[in-house]
Amino acid sequence: MIDVAIMGHGVVGSGVAEILINHNERISKRVKNDVNVKYILDLRDFDSLPYSEKFIKDFNIILSDADVKVVAEVMGGVNPAYDFVKKCLASGKSVVTSNKELVAAKGAELIKIAEDNNVNFLFEASVGGGIPVLRPMTQCMSANEIDEIWGILNGTTNYILNKMIVDNMDFDTALKLAQDLGFAEKDPTADIEGHDACRKVCILAALGFGKHVYPNQVKTEGITKITLDDVAYADSFGCVIKLIGHAKKLKNGKITASVAPTLVSRDCILSGVNGVFNAVMLNGDQTGEVVFYGKGAGKEATASAVVADIMDCIKHINARKYLSWEDGDNDYVDIAHDPKTRLFVLLKSEDFDGLLKQWSEIFGENIQNVKNEETGEIAFITDTDFESKLREKLSLFKNGISVKTLKTML
Amino acid sequence: MIDVAIMGHGVVGSGVAEILINHNERISKRVKNDVNVKYILDLRDFDSLPYSEKFIKDFNIILSDADVKVVAEVMGGVNPAYDFVKKCLASGKSVVTSNKELVAAKGAELIKIAEDNNVNFLFEASVGGGIPVLRPMTQCMSANEIDEIWGILNGTTNYILNKMIVDNMDFDTALKLAQDLGFAEKDPTADIEGHDACRKVCILAALGFGKHVYPNQVKTEGITKITLDDVAYADSFGCVIKLIGHAKKLKNGKITASVAPTLVSRDCILSGVNGVFNAVMLNGDQTGEVVFYGKGAGKEATASAVVADIMDCIKHINARKYLSWEDGDNDYVDIAHDPKTRLFVLLKSEDFDGLLKQWSEIFGENIQNVKNEETGEIAFITDTDFESKLREKLSLFKNGISVKTLKTML
Repeated sequence: MIDVAIMGHGVVGSGVAEILINHNERISKRVKNDVNVKYILDLRDFDSLPYSEKFIKDFNIILSDADVKVVAEVMGGVNPAYDFVKKCLASGKSVVTSNKELVAAKGAELIKIAEDNNVNFLFEASVGGGIPVLRPMTQCMSANEIDEIWGILNGTTNYILNKMIVDNMDFDTALKLAQDLGFAEKDPTADIEGHDACRKVCILAALGFGKHVYPNQVKTEGITKITLDDVAYADSFGCVIKLIGHAKKLKNGKITASVAPTLVSRDCILSGVNGVFNAVMLNGDQTGEVVFYGKGAGKEATASAVVADIMDCIKHINARKYLSWEDGDNDYVDIAHDPKTRLFVLLKSEDFDGLLKQWSEIFGENIQNVKNEETGEIAFITDTDFESKLREKLSLFKNGISVKTLKTML
Repeated sequence: MIDVAIMGHGVVGSGVAEILINHNERISKRVKNDVNVKYILDLRDFDSLPYSEKFIKDFNIILSDADVKVVAEVMGGVNPAYDFVKKCLASGKSVVTSNKELVAAKGAELIKIAEDNNVNFLFEASVGGGIPVLRPMTQCMSANEIDEIWGILNGTTNYILNKMIVDNMDFDTALKLAQDLGFAEKDPTADIEGHDACRKVCILAALGFGKHVYPNQVKTEGITKITLDDVAYADSFGCVIKLIGHAKKLKNGKITASVAPTLVSRDCILSGVNGVFNAVMLNGDQTGEVVFYGKGAGKEATASAVVADIMDCIKHINARKYLSWEDGDNDYVDIAHDPKTRLFVLLKSEDFDGLLKQWSEIFGENIQNVKNEETGEIAFITDTDFESKLREKLSLFKNGISVKTLKTML
């Protein structure tokens, strides 16, 4: 028999408990061992559950029980999760977690502690909820050098953008609807400002490229400034706007990492990832592009990924899984944009005739563009390698012209 | 050091050799062991390769060399691969293969031999080429009960259908183009008649549902009867036609399994899988729908999946991977269609007025339909649970009316 402890009984934690308890036979059979949920740590009272007797409020009971070999940390947040996880690993317990904030902030350190203590630290659920991503990335693609990663990593923003694209609903209305439906939190900042996606980019980049990337190294922009006009312009270029997390290896050994609203061609499979679904696309030097798609959040989906990690720990109770990276450093992430990115540019002026004249002088007419006399706007998409030139060219425009740029995946 | 043998030096085999030899440092580092390609078995001569000294023509050299711990079978076909693989497993060597025909025909038996000899038999490359599917299905989704599987499993047919849909090219022209571009073989039967996809459905169903499914148990239909008119009708219902491999658990403990051209809604992510790309969609009771997407064939992609399996065998040289199923039986696969399937129906008559009259008498007008007076056709999509009723209703039509039906994923 293997004793397991669950730290946290919120949305994901209760899902983990329910799967482990309700589907115990299936799971025990598959790991060829009896799996027993011994403790559930939560400060709240849960008196009326069929497994209420398992609840404890003192973390030290788990820590000091040598029979507990695997601990699931599903509390969320960096503290006290960080302290608890560190202590569990150091005392020879494997830990699995769905906590992206913790992994993005402390992953390299916790992996090192796990290695030093010959236990496992797994976190499949921290990226893409129930979508298998991290394990296939490291195992199935182990013969590859991964050089670029793109992801639709946040269901809330994808739902909102989808409503804007399909139903022509403005941002505020779509956010309100997402909140009413439970797809967005009361304080939606972490989602709509891109912080949640940023943490997942950190984890994907670390695992894909081998060095820790810290959230403050990722240029992060949310979707709050996206308008229905942007959506319409994107459509006229055959694109939809998605919040894309992106990381890429550069030739100088550094990487770029960003989260930004991005124009995605309707020909790209990621353009069809709608609603609360998530997807991660990887480019391997042997496989080319590979995509993993599914529900990026939700109780059952995320909990099933946590349980799969628990099962993997049980099957490898005396073996180490190869899921690791080194610590990063300050200048590992290049703050400049990837120079290969094409940009969507929207110029606007109250003096549209003046704008037109300058536009044809500075850019010429050989760039495909959309003009809107009514709003005084010209929209176009630049070539690659254009960003530095763009800044120079834009500086030639006279005052009174506003400029908005968005990244593209074109 | 770990000695590896490669049996076969065709497209995939040469790819495996090249990755293992050219990227040896990367791979050895990742498995924490020196990986050495000791033998390559092929009856042909390869004198001018940088690794020509590794070639042998006698299988028994591999079999009798106790240092060879892992063998990659990339010859294709059931014979002599079956005999060679059996002997390798029985003598304590782990085997990896890309050979879908072998796994579909002999998987259960070979898995059993591997288990009895405490070695591994892995075959990630046999489904979806370079796309990670089998391992995430069994490991990451291990907390799930998988109940339905759909796949676009053959790049050749997907390329042809895509040409028909996007470029309005007829079947024969698209097939010719695919052959000219190397996407279809000179004898394209195995692809266009669905046999290749059928083998992959067998493997997916076996792994997903736990019992071997044999190719002759899968109702298999190719794409040769699909016309540009079908494509246009599908479009008018918001669908594209894809060759879908499908397997589903039924309530009676049996399963259904089929390969058939199928109408897929443009809202479904599988509708965006174009060209030579493949995708597998699984439904798990906890995760909901999960999709894996990428290149389903090609030298590097497929070889990289074989190499990943070799690496996994090396890392687990003394441990068994949990990738298995039991043998199936004759009545495990239900020969009837899944009753929940909606069908696309196309009725045609030279007497269009007579057809219209009978149509409104037999079906009424409350089914959405498309009428084409010029061709004398009426197209419509049935409700679910309609198949038996449909046959009954169709029998009411008078002579001179032709009927074509296609499955849908609606």
